[in-house]
Amino acid sequence: CFSQDIDYVLETQSALAVDLGGTNLRVAIISMKGEILKKYSQSNPNTYEERIDLILKMCVEAATEAVRFNCRILGVGISTGGRVNPHEGVVLHSTKLIQEWDSVDLRTPISDALHLPVWVDNDGNCAALAEKKFGHGKGVENFVTVITGTGIGGGIIHHNELIHGSTFCAAELGHIMVSLDGPECLCGSRGCIEAYASGMALQREAKKLHDEDMLLVEGMSVKNEEPVSAVHLIQAAKLGNSKADNVLRAAGAALAVGIVNILHTVNPSLVILSGVLAPHYENIVKHVVSQRALTSAQGANVVTSELEEPALLGAASMVLDYTTRRLY
Amino acid sequence: CFSQDIDYVLETQSALAVDLGGTNLRVAIISMKGEILKKYSQSNPNTYEERIDLILKMCVEAATEAVRFNCRILGVGISTGGRVNPHEGVVLHSTKLIQEWDSVDLRTPISDALHLPVWVDNDGNCAALAEKKFGHGKGVENFVTVITGTGIGGGIIHHNELIHGSTFCAAELGHIMVSLDGPECLCGSRGCIEAYASGMALQREAKKLHDEDMLLVEGMSVKNEEPVSAVHLIQAAKLGNSKADNVLRAAGAALAVGIVNILHTVNPSLVILSGVLAPHYENIVKHVVSQRALTSAQGANVVTSELEEPALLGAASMVLDYTTRRLY
Ligand SMILES: [Ca+2]
Ligand SMILES: [Ca+2]
Ligand SMILES: [Zn+2]
Ligand SMILES: [Zn+2]
Repeated sequence: CFSQDIDYVLETQSALAVDLGGTNLRVAIISMKGEILKKYSQSNPNTYEERIDLILKMCVEAATEAVRFNCRILGVGISTGGRVNPHEGVVLHSTKLIQEWDSVDLRTPISDALHLPVWVDNDGNCAALAEKKFGHGKGVENFVTVITGTGIGGGIIHHNELIHGSTFCAAELGHIMVSLDGPECLCGSRGCIEAYASGMALQREAKKLHDEDMLLVEGMSVKNEEPVSAVHLIQAAKLGNSKADNVLRAAGAALAVGIVNILHTVNPSLVILSGVLAPHYENIVKHVVSQRALTSAQGANVVTSELEEPALLGAASMVLDYTTRRLY
Repeated sequence: CFSQDIDYVLETQSALAVDLGGTNLRVAIISMKGEILKKYSQSNPNTYEERIDLILKMCVEAATEAVRFNCRILGVGISTGGRVNPHEGVVLHSTKLIQEWDSVDLRTPISDALHLPVWVDNDGNCAALAEKKFGHGKGVENFVTVITGTGIGGGIIHHNELIHGSTFCAAELGHIMVSLDGPECLCGSRGCIEAYASGMALQREAKKLHDEDMLLVEGMSVKNEEPVSAVHLIQAAKLGNSKADNVLRAAGAALAVGIVNILHTVNPSLVILSGVLAPHYENIVKHVVSQRALTSAQGANVVTSELEEPALLGAASMVLDYTTRRLY
């Protein structure tokens, strides 16, 4: 039947991408070219059962709507906070931000319910896969992405593949330490780059300045109910607050020393900074790399990601690249 | 001819191993089982020409003598300080300790003169290969070796292969920084673990203590012409000098934080400490890993190498494993 054949050819090969974060549970329909055709967002439930139910419900809704877009869904890719065994599709251990999320087999229930293959990896690794397929990492054999949001995560591509490590906790780049003491980190250690340069860390410093009445400068205000955050620190620095500027520089320098440590360990040719804070760190990272990396490692490019949704795009890429991938 | 066949069967498949260090040039005949059948040592010449000539001379002598041991030499493996492109057999850049050793093609002249295949890699990488074939790394898919001698070097095995990186300077583990400032390092940066925990760093601290008359304790002496070194620091600590002990602990703690950074980057299942200082650092490294690594990374074993000649054995292993290796 001729018209069906045409329809089939005109179908867009697509993926359902799921992003499980500390706050939201999001699902998207993403095409082979990386277009986000439709995006759904809900708050991420606090219990395992509600979360699985909501993932299924949102995926079914998206899969139904995909028909309207003439999309053929090839599978489901899931990005989640925490440590993941991607071979098994199991979340081994979650961050504190996602509750009831230890030893969770995501592949079996979702694959069984939706009759689709399912891939799972952690959000930092998904971001790296997204850069590989759709971003600055296209065609780059060895690169690293460092994501600075609330916390700091990352992913390492070596010989075109993610490094997962022996217990799937490689690229825990937020917990690279750049000080023998330094500020306390959520992980229990001290001096981690997350404790210097994450959104949380900047918020901590912004609050300190605000408590001392040294944050706000002319042209700025913080409403009573509004929490002081990294945003205010950046705004204050831009408006000439030298204390705020110093905090941002110190944070950037710490992040950069951590990145030099990565260069001296896996020697990538490219570092992709990603997340809301990335643009503020790019210059200082470049500067510190030129000052403190070995000459032979200084050739590494440092760029800011241009992807708007690295976690979702990376989750989709696990599906879209499956024929050429080793896993599953 | 029957007896010749038997002879052939009884031959020991062997390698010529060359180790180019800051002080010595050494050559050894090493069997498939890792036995060092014969070892030659000379001072490493200061010029490129003399060095190449001496390598050839020593290799010819060793190859001749190998016949007496009924060894069949399969090739030449070379371990050298500096950065190496192992695909090409070229030394890209040397450490300050080896002069006239930049952009040196080692493979072509040695292969041409000896009519044998030649492999080259840097000493830290060779040490990792040695552990993989003959040491604690046997059968371990992902591990790291950290060598503390005069400086600090290392090698990373990931999926049973060395990580060389995009410009062949991966595993420059000595220049992982654990302080935003910290002691100056030979590389031009500060706070590198080499600047805290290498033989050079301990010698610097030993001299400081000695200058303040706080190094020697009862039962110790330093002859006038003898340079104060890490050995005296270790001896003093053992004899109850708490200042010396503190220096060693601080050095070990810095090394350990650097090792935790490696765990959080490539997540190996095993860390092999090697070099003369390794036994002194094993306990503190274990302790710091248990205190400062993420729970999921704490499972990494920390052991001290049992190999006496990691560089030579690793150089030999490049030859002995060549049939199963991808390079060359
Ligand atoms: Ca990660
Ligand atoms: Ca190395
Ligand atoms: Zn941490
Ligand atoms: Zn250094």
